[in-house]
Amino acid sequence: MRNLKVKTAYNGSAYHGWQSQNNALAIQDVIEQRLSKMLGEKISVNGCSRTDTGVHAKDFCFNFHTENPIPCEGLLKGMNSQLPDDIALLSCEEVDESFHARFDSKGKQYLYIVNNAAQRDVFMQNLAFFYPYKLDENKMNEAAQLFVGEHDFKAFCKAESLAHLKSTVRTISEFKVIRNGNFVEFYVTGDGFLHNMVRILVGTLIYVNENKRTKDDILASLATGKREKAGITLSPCGLYLNKIYY
Amino acid sequence: MRNLKVKTAYNGSAYHGWQSQNNALAIQDVIEQRLSKMLGEKISVNGCSRTDTGVHAKDFCFNFHTENPIPCEGLLKGMNSQLPDDIALLSCEEVDESFHARFDSKGKQYLYIVNNAAQRDVFMQNLAFFYPYKLDENKMNEAAQLFVGEHDFKAFCKAESLAHLKSTVRTISEFKVIRNGNFVEFYVTGDGFLHNMVRILVGTLIYVNENKRTKDDILASLATGKREKAGITLSPCGLYLNKIYY
Repeated sequence: MRNLKVKTAYNGSAYHGWQSQNNALAIQDVIEQRLSKMLGEKISVNGCSRTDTGVHAKDFCFNFHTENPIPCEGLLKGMNSQLPDDIALLSCEEVDESFHARFDSKGKQYLYIVNNAAQRDVFMQNLAFFYPYKLDENKMNEAAQLFVGEHDFKAFCKAESLAHLKSTVRTISEFKVIRNGNFVEFYVTGDGFLHNMVRILVGTLIYVNENKRTKDDILASLATGKREKAGITLSPCGLYLNKIYY
Repeated sequence: MRNLKVKTAYNGSAYHGWQSQNNALAIQDVIEQRLSKMLGEKISVNGCSRTDTGVHAKDFCFNFHTENPIPCEGLLKGMNSQLPDDIALLSCEEVDESFHARFDSKGKQYLYIVNNAAQRDVFMQNLAFFYPYKLDENKMNEAAQLFVGEHDFKAFCKAESLAHLKSTVRTISEFKVIRNGNFVEFYVTGDGFLHNMVRILVGTLIYVNENKRTKDDILASLATGKREKAGITLSPCGLYLNKIYY
């Protein structure tokens, strides 16, 4: 049985996230439907992660098993001619039968993009969070360093998801906040992320920028797990799964 | 009577160009409708240019006359809260009553963007022309210099539009072809442009890249006005009105 590892990028604006669910179109559905048709067998893929409704990916990975002998290059070309414009397959390679896109991942990097121009960017509809007020990237970058390391991120998780989790401890290895012209970019790298975690982390930094939260509040949120010490959950439209590490 | 000069940017994907016409939605229609509602009088605007269906603008200018005393800042905020996400007003200022956005323009710069990656860019749907084959930007830039100066660009105009023109002589002051990562960008600056001219100029350079046209063909197209010596008309999706000069 062949095991194929595929990298993909998608604009999540039109989808209810990566993962298949009832009564809503997910990116996984579109890919499985096209793959099944092309390969003539029912294909189920393992995604490296779940991304929420409206969240994007520049480097998402999935794997699947097939008996079909189609060369990787042919699969890539065939699929890209069949997929809608907002989903593209970037690479395909045959890997060891035991490889699993989720379980074998060593970490991920998320990117959150804020459009900090005076007016909205008509070429970034649904691709950046629009925030036209003063943003001090250095102040936010300094506060962001408090998140680096192993912490209990319970205060940075969607409340409804807490019940399903064995642990809310995660390790962030790097957090960078940089300005790129009118855009402020938040790069967060870690071994794993809770539901809505990046959107709440960045929302908290925006609150630090607005003097609605202090560094002490961040330390208290990490120490106590109290959601109200953190900041708002920002819009999904600015969030990208930027890199997946193996 | 006040005369207001307004800069705007728009993603042209959903519109039949800038200019109002029968039975199709143009960007001008949307702006005039919102302005008229906001100012309580029938507003007609003068655009600096016409852009075709699917063409974008990063720096488009229009002017209009009004009796309404609304401050420029208020007009800008009010309009941006009413306009759809793919149109934004960037600035507004009161100018001399004689100013006309089209007649007073001293020139324009167009930008044509080609996505030269192996796979399509899911974040640039309708915002770049996808060309996954080898592109030599230096070779194209060298050939592009043949267009610089005053020439008869009859061979680089949509045939149906020739009948309406007094002259097909235009001056290109600068033509730059540069690579920006996976994107090849064509910047063309001139005093005026014929219908489809930039799309045919860039299409001709793509043909030079593919060895379907030579520098001699370009010289012959300029000398004879024969459309068949030039190249194809590229898709509008890669074209942007990048700057308007006064």
